[in-house]
Amino acid sequence: MEKVLVFGHKNPDTDTITSAIVYAYLKNAIGIEAEAVALGEVNNETKFALEKFGFEAPRIIGDVSSEAKKVILVDHNEKQQSADGIENVQVTEVIDHHRIANFETADPLYYRAEPVGCTATILNKIFKEKGVEIPANIAGLMLSAIVSDSLLFKSPTCTEEDIAAARELEEIAGVNLEEYGLAMLKAGADLSDKSLEDLLSLDAKEFVMGEYKVVIAQVNAVDVNDVMNRRAELEDLINLEVQENELDLFFFVVTDILNNDSVALALGKLALKAEAAFNVKFDDNNIALLKGVVSRKKQVVPALTEALALLL
Amino acid sequence: MEKVLVFGHKNPDTDTITSAIVYAYLKNAIGIEAEAVALGEVNNETKFALEKFGFEAPRIIGDVSSEAKKVILVDHNEKQQSADGIENVQVTEVIDHHRIANFETADPLYYRAEPVGCTATILNKIFKEKGVEIPANIAGLMLSAIVSDSLLFKSPTCTEEDIAAARELEEIAGVNLEEYGLAMLKAGADLSDKSLEDLLSLDAKEFVMGEYKVVIAQVNAVDVNDVMNRRAELEDLINLEVQENELDLFFFVVTDILNNDSVALALGKLALKAEAAFNVKFDDNNIALLKGVVSRKKQVVPALTEALALLL
Repeated sequence: MEKVLVFGHKNPDTDTITSAIVYAYLKNAIGIEAEAVALGEVNNETKFALEKFGFEAPRIIGDVSSEAKKVILVDHNEKQQSADGIENVQVTEVIDHHRIANFETADPLYYRAEPVGCTATILNKIFKEKGVEIPANIAGLMLSAIVSDSLLFKSPTCTEEDIAAARELEEIAGVNLEEYGLAMLKAGADLSDKSLEDLLSLDAKEFVMGEYKVVIAQVNAVDVNDVMNRRAELEDLINLEVQENELDLFFFVVTDILNNDSVALALGKLALKAEAAFNVKFDDNNIALLKGVVSRKKQVVPALTEALALLL
Repeated sequence: MEKVLVFGHKNPDTDTITSAIVYAYLKNAIGIEAEAVALGEVNNETKFALEKFGFEAPRIIGDVSSEAKKVILVDHNEKQQSADGIENVQVTEVIDHHRIANFETADPLYYRAEPVGCTATILNKIFKEKGVEIPANIAGLMLSAIVSDSLLFKSPTCTEEDIAAARELEEIAGVNLEEYGLAMLKAGADLSDKSLEDLLSLDAKEFVMGEYKVVIAQVNAVDVNDVMNRRAELEDLINLEVQENELDLFFFVVTDILNNDSVALALGKLALKAEAAFNVKFDDNNIALLKGVVSRKKQVVPALTEALALLL
């Protein structure tokens, strides 16, 4: 039987990279040849987790159709987030925790999605269902994914199932969840090797809200001032991007992983509309503190979507 | 919490109806209020199974958005096979064994698809995962679904998992699988109360193959001559449909459930192309025996698709 490739989304994060490695391990354990690959370089947080538990970063692939005939997607399903050439290979399985959109197959497949905070939480169940034991280093990767996606259980995307899975995996991995988790988040929040351009593009997603074009970029930081002290230079770069891409709003969110708040910098002609969205006042530098806001998916996107809808 | 509705596809078959009843039972057993409903009248086979195990046919709904806010789909996912108004309700779960297409959600959901022959086979796993015991009458319904979708394990869509699940359910239901299964299939193959129009529409699906429009209709029979003796009248009706709907091919398949062969009647301007598809000669009445052919999905559609592709 030919080898199947397992991979997560582009701009890979810790859940995407570790879930590919973990699910390829599970497949191999039940006699199916599988290889974890990646669609981009791993970030500092993921690198920390891989090193801690003794794994290499998966090799990066280009057009997937020149690599394999069959693939398994983890942590995503939408075509535009997946590998180039995805329409020319057969997707035999998907393990995911996102909405389903822009996804279609010609044949029946194994598709497992659950509305939980992290792919690793679903993988933890599948190990049990298949009766495969989770080794300590694999448990460490899964634990890292839950800590990352849930910001140590602080994100509103985190469910009771994610917490229960993390506690089981902590036991198997033999680490202290809080200590290790904070160290990993801090490694990811270490922005010292990042250029300002990196900060803006590291985790930026474009959204269409009504008739407006909005980019929301997010970075984690231990001290938000490390980033916001460079506000003037950031503002120049963002204004350039707003102009070049005809954006109505660029919303840059720096999330404080210790206090679980965010500081936002809003630019573009709709920047002031963010005040109503979060019920805050932006200062003369277009900056505001968003108390308790950590999740783009559950907090920032819905609030901005609603505020901009009122303009129409 | 508001009640969630559970339903299968339009033109309901035994797997679709029983899976809705069975999954609603499982939901209720774990404290979630759920009601099984149907998108059309049950067929004779399903009626036989429901009566045998003491169930009523689910009530039939129209536009789903006037009935509920949240729904669970079983045995299908494609929008055109689902309830009217489906785009105005939230799909919270899908349990299915078909390809994924024309399906999109705004939010994460529970989606469980596996490439097996029957939805009931997946439900059997979910009962175990949830630790809920399967009562005898519910097991009877699940067994009926597997017998129906697999034609008593004779269909090429049937997997080892389907057979294993059926054997477990036979034990719980306390029936003899072969005896009960054959009686149920015979009840479904009793066409005595059907008009010729019924026979052609009971289970007809339209396909686009290359640039051609093809309808493949299928009925099960104990004696294929009961149907084929009325060939002349059938031919008139089919020719009318070919003309009205500008079909290139109408392929009518009568499947012999005792011998697991089919007899096909092919009409339309591409009728003779079916000879190459199945490597058979159609007689002067446009009829041919297709030895060992029982599955539209796995045998008829691929053979015709390939033969028609050669014309382009």
